[in-house]
Amino acid sequence: MAFLDILKQIVDSFEGCIGGIVIGIDGISVEQYMKESANIDFQNIGAEYMNLMKTITDTSRTLGFEEPGQLIIEYQDTTLIVRSINKDYFVILAAKNNGNIGKGRFLLRKNILNFSKEF
Amino acid sequence: MAFLDILKQIVDSFEGCIGGIVIGIDGISVEQYMKESANIDFQNIGAEYMNLMKTITDTSRTLGFEEPGQLIIEYQDTTLIVRSINKDYFVILAAKNNGNIGKGRFLLRKNILNFSKEF
Repeated sequence: MAFLDILKQIVDSFEGCIGGIVIGIDGISVEQYMKESANIDFQNIGAEYMNLMKTITDTSRTLGFEEPGQLIIEYQDTTLIVRSINKDYFVILAAKNNGNIGKGRFLLRKNILNFSKEF
Repeated sequence: MAFLDILKQIVDSFEGCIGGIVIGIDGISVEQYMKESANIDFQNIGAEYMNLMKTITDTSRTLGFEEPGQLIIEYQDTTLIVRSINKDYFVILAAKNNGNIGKGRFLLRKNILNFSKEF
């Protein structure tokens, strides 16, 4: 299944989700899918969050932790879920906070193998 | 209720939780509570994560988001929940991944007002 199909399946089944992106740690986007109503600059968010992931990974190693598998950032209205596919690629989902964040996490976990098969 | 009592109440009711810390954005710990079995350097984790929060807040502003209210970092075995009490102080909980992370989030949300009343 292509990246777009997997993203579409997750985003459309995840109530409150605005969209998702598959992106390299270098900040270059591989694929993205947004709901029609989405008003969000995913390329920019993805690139900035990939920079953050590098910093978080460095800090984690300093503390004796392994690389983080998942990061959830809750803003007042929006939640971002950043999950690693492998050490070079990540999926980021954005959702409204009144959405079902738990279901989003579940769908991402369930589909992570489908993403990794594409590499 | 003192910080230690609130921390103790959350940590002891949150299955899988190792401990918790109340810490300033400057990395200086206010109070911490750990379960007896805990083998974790909370002072160090707290200080490093406060540095990360500053970076994440800067990135968030660049992207047009407000300050993040909560951050959840999932490692292979351990999850950290970092929640802001106000703009200068945070609570960090550490838990084993087989613990009830959802309950931890709930307890933290429920008690955040108790923490903020102490300032």
